[in-house]
Amino acid sequence: MASNTRERIVNTTAELFRRQGYVGTGLKQIVAGADAPFGSVYHFFPGGKEQLGAEVIRVSGQFYEDLVTAVWDAAPDVVTAVADMFAGAAETLRETDYADACPIATVALEVASTNDVLRAATADVFSAWIDAAVDRLTDASIEPAKAREVAIATIALLEGAFILSRATRTTEALEAASQTAVAQVRAALPGSGGRAAGGGRSIAR
Amino acid sequence: MASNTRERIVNTTAELFRRQGYVGTGLKQIVAGADAPFGSVYHFFPGGKEQLGAEVIRVSGQFYEDLVTAVWDAAPDVVTAVADMFAGAAETLRETDYADACPIATVALEVASTNDVLRAATADVFSAWIDAAVDRLTDASIEPAKAREVAIATIALLEGAFILSRATRTTEALEAASQTAVAQVRAALPGSGGRAAGGGRSIAR
Repeated sequence: MASNTRERIVNTTAELFRRQGYVGTGLKQIVAGADAPFGSVYHFFPGGKEQLGAEVIRVSGQFYEDLVTAVWDAAPDVVTAVADMFAGAAETLRETDYADACPIATVALEVASTNDVLRAATADVFSAWIDAAVDRLTDASIEPAKAREVAIATIALLEGAFILSRATRTTEALEAASQTAVAQVRAALPGSGGRAAGGGRSIAR
Repeated sequence: MASNTRERIVNTTAELFRRQGYVGTGLKQIVAGADAPFGSVYHFFPGGKEQLGAEVIRVSGQFYEDLVTAVWDAAPDVVTAVADMFAGAAETLRETDYADACPIATVALEVASTNDVLRAATADVFSAWIDAAVDRLTDASIEPAKAREVAIATIALLEGAFILSRATRTTEALEAASQTAVAQVRAALPGSGGRAAGGGRSIAR
């Protein structure tokens, strides 16, 4: 079987995971969507749905990271980059009728307590995203510990806002999350007088 | 059948949704966990799994709201309240081996594009949570539009941090999210000089 069959299987599965999660996605639906023979899934993924799932998590995670970092790196500064990232996410949600959000989050929640192979795959993706954001925040002279805290909170804001926005079918949550993400990045920049502002350890109780 | 059978069915289903979502939870598993006869689900919920699912979303949403607002209302001020909410969430995650987080989020992501009855039920829960937070923030003299923005971002931070924390099996994400949530609430309080700080519309690009 041609390797583009394998690619179609992975891409179809990624799309299905994003819309309906891991558990609700069946092999029959995957092969139908990929226009592939049923046996092809086991041909390419002898470990079946779990092995395919882990591959899809890795591929989707990398694809989404490339997409987001391309938006980020096109911006003139980190504050604009974060705002652009949330604006792009809101636009995608509206354009796809609130279907296409994070390709990993639904699966991550489903498998966190039930499948450790897939849980570990989602953790690897989130770690890679955090590292990519930390690199860019430290390049903007934010000190490493603060950069990690801001990176994690920014990803949490994006993921949480996806849940709220998809549930309510409005982008209000992404807009509110964007305000907070932008404010915390701005406050973390050198010379911002960050003591009174977003996310500093110095201001925690 | 006694009404406590109904209650056991709802509570068992809530627990299963939290750990493995809606799609992965079967009626057989529910009746086994609830120690109830198979037919009892259809006796109490003629609409089957969907009707039971909508009821569980409503009941769990209210229960979780009561739990969180009890923590919030026991705190001396809103900044402490938000910090306590995240600290309580982190403690629960650790104590339950990263299983018990938001009872709604997994289902919300699974059904957002596939089941509009259940999607609407999750939207109602999130709206109620936002309203409860807005009430408390405006009681602390934060103006209504800002209070709504802060409330939504705080819930997004909590939900997003649950995803990251469950995937990575650490509470680092909840701690980072807490820093950001606390900072944005602090910055929104009157007299905080909020222009330089968390979440203000005035500082967005």
